[in-house]
Amino acid sequence: MALWGGRFSGSADEALRQLNDSLPFDRRMALQDVAGSIAYARAVGRAGVITESEAGQIVAGLEQVREEFLAGAFVFAAGDEDIHTAVERRLTEFIGPVGGKLHTGRSRNDQVATDFRLWTLDALAGLDERLADLQGALAGTAETHAATLMPGYTHMQPAQPITAGHWLMSYFWMLARDRDRLRDCARRTAVSPLGSGALAGTPFAVDRATLAAELGFASASPNSLDAVADRDFAAEALFALALAGVHLSRFGEDVVLFSNPSFGFITLDDRFSTGSSLMPQKRNPDPLELARGKAGRLIGNLTGFLTVLKGMPAGYNKDLQEDKEALFDSVDTLSLILPVLIAVVRSLRLNPDNMRAALSDDMLATDLADYLVRKGAPFREAHHIVGRAVAQASQRGIGLPALSLSDLQELSPAFDPDVTAVFDFEQSVARRAAQGGTAPEAVRAQIAAARAWLNGFAAPA
Amino acid sequence: MALWGGRFSGSADEALRQLNDSLPFDRRMALQDVAGSIAYARAVGRAGVITESEAGQIVAGLEQVREEFLAGAFVFAAGDEDIHTAVERRLTEFIGPVGGKLHTGRSRNDQVATDFRLWTLDALAGLDERLADLQGALAGTAETHAATLMPGYTHMQPAQPITAGHWLMSYFWMLARDRDRLRDCARRTAVSPLGSGALAGTPFAVDRATLAAELGFASASPNSLDAVADRDFAAEALFALALAGVHLSRFGEDVVLFSNPSFGFITLDDRFSTGSSLMPQKRNPDPLELARGKAGRLIGNLTGFLTVLKGMPAGYNKDLQEDKEALFDSVDTLSLILPVLIAVVRSLRLNPDNMRAALSDDMLATDLADYLVRKGAPFREAHHIVGRAVAQASQRGIGLPALSLSDLQELSPAFDPDVTAVFDFEQSVARRAAQGGTAPEAVRAQIAAARAWLNGFAAPA
Amino acid sequence: MALWGGRFSGSADEALRQLNDSLPFDRRMALQDVAGSIAYARAVGRAGVITESEAGQIVAGLEQVREEFLAGAFVFAAGDEDIHTAVERRLTEFIGPVGGKLHTGRSRNDQVATDFRLWTLDALAGLDERLADLQGALAGTAETHAATLMPGYTHMQPAQPITAGHWLMSYFWMLARDRDRLRDCARRTAVSPLGSGALAGTPFAVDRATLAAELGFASASPNSLDAVADRDFAAEALFALALAGVHLSRFGEDVVLFSNPSFGFITLDDRFSTGSSLMPQKRNPDPLELARGKAGRLIGNLTGFLTVLKGMPAGYNKDLQEDKEALFDSVDTLSLILPVLIAVVRSLRLNPDNMRAALSDDMLATDLADYLVRKGAPFREAHHIVGRAVAQASQRGIGLPALSLSDLQELSPAFDPDVTAVFDFEQSVARRAAQGGTAPEAVRAQIAAARAWLNGFAAPA
Amino acid sequence: MALWGGRFSGSADEALRQLNDSLPFDRRMALQDVAGSIAYARAVGRAGVITESEAGQIVAGLEQVREEFLAGAFVFAAGDEDIHTAVERRLTEFIGPVGGKLHTGRSRNDQVATDFRLWTLDALAGLDERLADLQGALAGTAETHAATLMPGYTHMQPAQPITAGHWLMSYFWMLARDRDRLRDCARRTAVSPLGSGALAGTPFAVDRATLAAELGFASASPNSLDAVADRDFAAEALFALALAGVHLSRFGEDVVLFSNPSFGFITLDDRFSTGSSLMPQKRNPDPLELARGKAGRLIGNLTGFLTVLKGMPAGYNKDLQEDKEALFDSVDTLSLILPVLIAVVRSLRLNPDNMRAALSDDMLATDLADYLVRKGAPFREAHHIVGRAVAQASQRGIGLPALSLSDLQELSPAFDPDVTAVFDFEQSVARRAAQGGTAPEAVRAQIAAARAWLNGFAAPA
Repeated sequence: MALWGGRFSGSADEALRQLNDSLPFDRRMALQDVAGSIAYARAVGRAGVITESEAGQIVAGLEQVREEFLAGAFVFAAGDEDIHTAVERRLTEFIGPVGGKLHTGRSRNDQVATDFRLWTLDALAGLDERLADLQGALAGTAETHAATLMPGYTHMQPAQPITAGHWLMSYFWMLARDRDRLRDCARRTAVSPLGSGALAGTPFAVDRATLAAELGFASASPNSLDAVADRDFAAEALFALALAGVHLSRFGEDVVLFSNPSFGFITLDDRFSTGSSLMPQKRNPDPLELARGKAGRLIGNLTGFLTVLKGMPAGYNKDLQEDKEALFDSVDTLSLILPVLIAVVRSLRLNPDNMRAALSDDMLATDLADYLVRKGAPFREAHHIVGRAVAQASQRGIGLPALSLSDLQELSPAFDPDVTAVFDFEQSVARRAAQGGTAPEAVRAQIAAARAWLNGFAAPA
Repeated sequence: MALWGGRFSGSADEALRQLNDSLPFDRRMALQDVAGSIAYARAVGRAGVITESEAGQIVAGLEQVREEFLAGAFVFAAGDEDIHTAVERRLTEFIGPVGGKLHTGRSRNDQVATDFRLWTLDALAGLDERLADLQGALAGTAETHAATLMPGYTHMQPAQPITAGHWLMSYFWMLARDRDRLRDCARRTAVSPLGSGALAGTPFAVDRATLAAELGFASASPNSLDAVADRDFAAEALFALALAGVHLSRFGEDVVLFSNPSFGFITLDDRFSTGSSLMPQKRNPDPLELARGKAGRLIGNLTGFLTVLKGMPAGYNKDLQEDKEALFDSVDTLSLILPVLIAVVRSLRLNPDNMRAALSDDMLATDLADYLVRKGAPFREAHHIVGRAVAQASQRGIGLPALSLSDLQELSPAFDPDVTAVFDFEQSVARRAAQGGTAPEAVRAQIAAARAWLNGFAAPA
Repeated sequence: MALWGGRFSGSADEALRQLNDSLPFDRRMALQDVAGSIAYARAVGRAGVITESEAGQIVAGLEQVREEFLAGAFVFAAGDEDIHTAVERRLTEFIGPVGGKLHTGRSRNDQVATDFRLWTLDALAGLDERLADLQGALAGTAETHAATLMPGYTHMQPAQPITAGHWLMSYFWMLARDRDRLRDCARRTAVSPLGSGALAGTPFAVDRATLAAELGFASASPNSLDAVADRDFAAEALFALALAGVHLSRFGEDVVLFSNPSFGFITLDDRFSTGSSLMPQKRNPDPLELARGKAGRLIGNLTGFLTVLKGMPAGYNKDLQEDKEALFDSVDTLSLILPVLIAVVRSLRLNPDNMRAALSDDMLATDLADYLVRKGAPFREAHHIVGRAVAQASQRGIGLPALSLSDLQELSPAFDPDVTAVFDFEQSVARRAAQGGTAPEAVRAQIAAARAWLNGFAAPA
Repeated sequence: MALWGGRFSGSADEALRQLNDSLPFDRRMALQDVAGSIAYARAVGRAGVITESEAGQIVAGLEQVREEFLAGAFVFAAGDEDIHTAVERRLTEFIGPVGGKLHTGRSRNDQVATDFRLWTLDALAGLDERLADLQGALAGTAETHAATLMPGYTHMQPAQPITAGHWLMSYFWMLARDRDRLRDCARRTAVSPLGSGALAGTPFAVDRATLAAELGFASASPNSLDAVADRDFAAEALFALALAGVHLSRFGEDVVLFSNPSFGFITLDDRFSTGSSLMPQKRNPDPLELARGKAGRLIGNLTGFLTVLKGMPAGYNKDLQEDKEALFDSVDTLSLILPVLIAVVRSLRLNPDNMRAALSDDMLATDLADYLVRKGAPFREAHHIVGRAVAQASQRGIGLPALSLSDLQELSPAFDPDVTAVFDFEQSVARRAAQGGTAPEAVRAQIAAARAWLNGFAAPA
C-alpha cells in the first residue's frame, strides 16, 4: 500500500521497488515512528484539525501498534514500502478510516527527519554510556599502574620513561573529547522538524513548540525548507563516531604492538584472542586489530555521506535516503567493538618486568641535559654536549652511565660526581610532576580529576 | 567448532564472538569456498600429501556440500565462525575424520583470499554485463534522437545547440571506460594465492600453477607473504565501481534536471516515478536521485577500505576482514541501480518540442564569430566583435538575429547580407561533423563505432 | 641549523631534507610561535628555571623577531628546517647564547601543538566573521523577498509555492549550525599543550595554568602524552569547514540551476560571471560552480587527515606533520570563496516574474486535499481523491482549476463552489504561517529571530 | 587580458578574480600548452582554416614562447588569468594580430583537457621510473638477505620463520601491480580531446586523428561533450597513486616498527634519521613515518576529487578546475618520498642476529603438526594435538622442544624420536620451496623472476 497512488496510471517497476525499498533498514525506527505519530496526533487534536476523540482513537491505535513492535509480533505486509507506510497501514487495520486522518498536514519528509533524529538521540546516548564505561575501565587499570614504569616512545623510538598509568590515561582524555562532541551533536540533533510538512510548513495551527517538547526535543526548527533536508546532525554524528573510532584504532595499534613478544608488555587474555586454522600456537589479538581496522569503515561512512550531501539542490531529495544505513552502520560498528574493548581493558595484563627491561639508559639523556641546565648551561648547549656523550657511548658500545666522569668532563666541565644520580628511571619519572606529567603522583592527581570529570559529565541531551 | 581450539584454556568472550563473526556476510562466498576446496583437495592428492582415494572422498563430500548450498538446504551450526569453518564442519559430518585432511598445508589466509578473488571475478563479470546492457540502451535511444536538437550547456548556461543523441552517447563512452577498467581489474584479480599457506608458503610439493589454472586463475601469486594480505584487487574494484557510480550520478543529475518542468526535456515514465505522501500531484524521479546519491556511498566504501589498508603491518592482519562488506555493498548497490537505469533509458521519453523551445539565438554567437573567421578575421577579434553584438542585442532586449545588417556592420565591415544564414540551429549542428562532433551524421558514425566497440569488447576474465 | 645535531655522525640526506622541510607552510605560524615563546620564557622565568633577567632578554629578543615578521623583514636562513628553528636561530643572533635557554623543558612537540592551536583559533574566528557576514547578507536579501513567490521543489519537481525569502533563509540556518560547530570546536581547541615536553611532561615547576591563560587558552591539557599527539581540534575544524562547504555547495547548485534561462529565476551580476574563450555570448556563474566543487576538496582534506591519524601509535609521530597543510588549505579555500558569495548574495538579482511564471496549478494539489480535510475527509482519502483529479486534468491536458465543479463532485461530493478559492498561490503561501513556515508573515518573524540570533551569538573563543 | 571580455559591461569582482585565478598552479602545464598549440596551429593550417604561412608564423611564435619558458625568462602579466591566456598573450606580442587566429575552433575546454592529459602522461612516466628504481633497490637488498632468517608475523604475532629477502620482495610485487595500474591509466589517458571545441565539436575540417598522433596520443576522443568534461584519467591516476602510497605506508610501518630497539631488526642510517630538539639521544625514522602518513593525503586527494565529480551536470563545469591541484599534489608527494625510500632501501642495514634472536620455538608448531601429517594424521587432528603440546609447554614455562618424547607421545603415539629434527628454523624455511614460498631457493627464483619482470615491463605510454 503506497501512500500516494491516486495520480499514477502504471504501477512502479519491480526493479525500482527493490531499489527504493527502505524497510529492511528503516524498520529500526519503528518505535520512534510510533512515538512521533502519537505526539503528532495529539498536536493536531489540540489544534482542532481533528477532534479530540479522533486523536484519542489514533493514539490508542498507535499504542496497539507499539505493543506489537515491542512484542516482536508486528507483521510487515508486502506493500509496506517503508516503516511509515507500515505503521499507518497497521493503524488503519486497527481503527479504520479515521487512521487516515493522522497524516494531515504532515509529510514523510518531516516525519522521517523526526524519526531519525529521535533514533540518533537514543543511539548517541547508548554509545555515550559505553564510552563512559571504557573511560572507567581505563581509569581503573591506570590506577593499578600509576607507578609502573614503561618506555615512552615518540616516532616509535625510545624517548623517555613514562608510567603505564599515564599511557592508559591518554586514552581516557581522547574519549572525554569524544563524549563532549557527542553531547554537542546531541544538542544540535534535538531540534524538531515536525510541522514542516513537505517543505513549506503546515497550513494548520499546530503548536510546534509544544509538539517538540512532548517528543523531548529542545526546540522546533526555524525554517521548514531547511528542516526537511537538514542532515547535519547525521553528518556530525558520523564524524564524532569516526574520530572516536580513530582513537580506538590508535589504542588497537598500541596493544597489538605491545602484545608482540619482542615488546612483551601485554598479555592478552585467551578470551580476547583467537587462534589460527593452520598454526597451532597462535594467539591473535583480533579485537584490537578490528579496533584498528574499523576506523576505516567509520571514516568511509562519513566520507560517503558528506559526498551524498554535496551539491544537492534545496529541499528534500531522495539522495537523503542514504543517511540511515551509514549512521546505522557506524553506530553498530562501535556498539560491537566497545563492549569488547571495555572487557579487554578491564582484564588487561601488563608485564611490568618486560616494560622495565625495555628501558634503556639513553632514555635519560634529556635528564642529563637538564642536569647541565641546573648547573647553569643554556639548554641548547647542554643538548649538544649530551648528544656528543650519547654518540661517544654508542661508538664504544656502552651505555651512557658507563661513561666515566672524566669522559663527561671532557665534554663539559660542569659535570660533577653527583651526575650519577641522574641515571635513575624512577627519579626521572618522579620529576615530571607538573600538571599532566607522567610522575606517579601527577598520574594519581590526573585520575582523580578524570573521575571528577566522569561524575560531572551527564549523558547527552 | 572453531578450527583452532587446542592451545586455548578459556573460550572466547561472547562479545568478541559477535564482533568477529563474519558468517553473516562471508556466507555469500559459499560456492567459491567449496570450489576452492575441491581444487585444493585434488592438488594435495596429486602432490601425494593425501592419497588419491582420500582426495576422492573429500571431493565427493564437498560436492554434497555444494548440493546443499545450491538447494538452499545447508544449515549453519552455532559454532560455525565463518564460511570456511562451516564447510569443513559439514564435510566432516559427511565423510568423517578424513575431512580433517583437507586443510593440510593450507591456511584460512590463503583460502579466504582465494574465495574472495573468485567471488570478485564473478561479480565483476555480472556488473560488466549490466553495464553493457546500459550501453546498448543508450545507443538505442541515442539513435532515435541522432538529429533531435537540444540546448547544450557548459557551466549550465546555454552554450551551443547539440543533438540529444550526442548527449546520450556521452554516457556510453564513460561506461566504456568503466568496463575497460573492470577488465583490467579482473586481470589483476585472476591471480591465485592458494598454496601460500598462512604467510610462508606451503611445505608440500603442491603444483600451484596447475591448481591456479583449475580454478580459472591466470597465474599463481609470486610471493606468499604478499599474497595473503594483498587486497589491491578489492581496492581497485571499489574504485572502478565508485567511478562508474560517479558517471551514473552525473546521468542522474541530468535527468533529474531535465525532468523539471522548467526544462521539460524529459518525461519520466510512471513506472520509474514515485509519489508523495502529502502532495497528490507529485511524480518524483527517485531512481535518478538515488543514482546521484549512491555515488557517495560507493566513494565511501572505497575511502573506507583504503583507510583500512593504510599503515597495516606486513602479512595478514585481522583488519582485512573489512574487505568483504565494503565490496559486497558496492556490488549490490550497482546491481540494484543498473537494472532500473537500463529500463529508464530504454523507456526515456524526450520532448523535442521543449528542447527546441529552449534553444536561444545567442547560442549561435560562436557560429557568428566563425562566420567572421571565414571572412578573414582572426578569431580573437571576431570573438570580441560578436561579444559586442551580443551585449548590444541584450541591452536592446532583442535577439542576435534582430540586429540589422547596419548594426552589425558598425561593429565590423566584414558582415555581409549572407550573415542571416548563420542563424539556423540545424546548420550550426550539421557543421560540427568532424569526428566526435554533434552533427547528426557524426553522431550516427559515433553510434556505429560504439556498436563495433560493444561487439569487440569481451567480458572481463 | 638543526636543533639536534650532537649525536649524529653523518648529515641528513638531501632528499630527506626536502621531504621533511615544513618551512614553506609552517612559516604561517610565525607570530603564534613567537607569542608562544614569549609566554614560555616568562613561565620558566617565574619558575626560576632561568633568571628574570634572562627571561627579560629573551622576551625582548623575541619582540625584535616579531617586529621583523610584522615588517616583512625576517630573512629565513638555509638551515632553518622549520619555523621553530628559524625563530630560535634569529633570537640567538639578537641576544646571544642566552637564547639557548628558551627551549629548556620544552620540546618541539608541545611547541608546535601550541602554535597550531593558536593559529587555528585565529583562523576559526576569521571564518566565523565571514560566515556571519554571509548570514547578514542572506537575511537582508531575504527580507526584500519575504513575499516574493517562487516554486518550491522537492526531488526537483514542483511541490508547493514558497517565498524566495524562505528559500534564502534556509541557508541562514545552515550557517548558524556551522558557526555553532565552529564555536564548539574552538572551545575544544583552547586547551594549552605547553609544558607537556616531548611526551612525559616537564621536570621544571612551570605553572602550566597561568602559562595557558597568558596565551588565551581556557585550560592546560590534562595528559602530556595525549597532548603532544592530539590533533582532534584540527580534525574537528576540518569537519566543520567541510560541512560548511557542503552547505555552500548546495547554495551553489541552487544558484547555478536558477540562473539557467529555463528557470531564469536569478540573473548573476557581470561582476560575478565569466566568459568563454570560444563562445562570445557566455556568462558563466563560476563562483557558484566553485562553491559547489570545492566542497569536494574540503571533504578530501578531512578524509585525508582522519586517515593520517588512523592507527598511529601513541605519542608524537612524524605523520602528524600532515595536519597543517590540510587545515591551511581548507581555511584558505573558504577564505577565498566566502567574500565572493557574500558579494553575490548582496547583489543577487531575483526575477519575480519568472519565478511566478514557473508556478503551476498542480502545486496547489495539497491545498485542494486540505480543503477536503476541512470538509471532514480523512487526509488519506482526500489525497487519493485529489490524486485522481490531478490524473484526470493531466489526461485532458488542462490545469486543476479547469476541472468543473461537477468533475470534482464526481470524485467527491464534498467539493462545493467555494473550492475555487483554493486556487490562489498567495493564499496557499499565507496559510503556512506556523513557526518556520513559508508565509510572508512567518518569514518576517523568522528573519527577526535570525537577527536576534546573530546579535546573541558571539565569536568563538 | 581575459579572452572573453566583449559582451561584459562591468569587470570581474576582485575577490572573484582571486578565487578563479588558476595561474599559480596551471603554469606547470606551460610546455604542454605550447606543444598543444603548435600541433593545433599545424592542424588548422592543414585544414585550410588559416593559411600555411599563418600557421608557420604562429608555430614560430610559439617556439619563441617555449624558449622563454625553458630559459625561465617568461614573465607573466597582471591580466593573465591562466596559462592559456598567458601563452596566447605572449604569442600575440611576438607575432601580432595573426596570433589571434590560433584559437579558431578551439575552446579552453578542449585545450586544458589536452594540456592536462599531456602533463599527466609525463608525470606517470616519471613516477613509473622512480617506482622501477625502488623495485630494483628492493630486489638488490632482498638478494643479499635471501637466506637471512627473521620472524614472520600474522596479526603481529609470531607465526613462522621467514627470510628477510622474502619480506622485502613482498613489496616488490605490490609495486609491480602499481606500475601495471599506472600503465593502464596511461593508456586511457592517451586519448586526445583536441578538436572537441567547447562541447559540440569543431565546425572546421580538422583531422583530429593526425592531430592526436602528432601530440603522441593513441587516438582522438569519440564524443566531444564527454571529452571536455572527462577527468576519469585524473581520478584513475589519483587512485593508482593513492594505492601505491598505501603500499609505501605499509613499508613505512614495517620499518618504523622493526627499527624500534625491542625488535632491533633494522638500523636506519643517520642520513635518514632526524633528531629531537629536546631529547639528545633520539634518532627518528622520519621518512618512514611520512611514508606512512602521506598515504592519508593521497587518499584525501582521491576522495576529494571523486566528490567534485559526483553529480556534476553534463559538459564542462567550473568545478573541474579542482582536478589539477589534487593530481599535482599527489604526484609531488610521491616524487618527494620515492627518492628517499629508494636510498633507504639501498642502504638498509638489517641486523640478522636480532632477527634470529626473535625466533621462538613455538613458531615451529605448524612444522610439528606437519610432522604428524606425514605420519598419517589428518591435519585437523594434528593441529589439535600440537595445540595441546603448545599449551602444556606454555603452562610449564618451557619451549616446545623441551617437551620430552614421552610427553609428546602421551598426546599422540605417532611421535617418534625423529621429532627432534623438526626444531630447526633453517629446515622449516627450506621446506617452503614451492613457488612463492619463503625458502632461500624459492626467494632466489622469485628475485630472478622479478628481474625478468622488470626487464620486460616498459614505461607507460
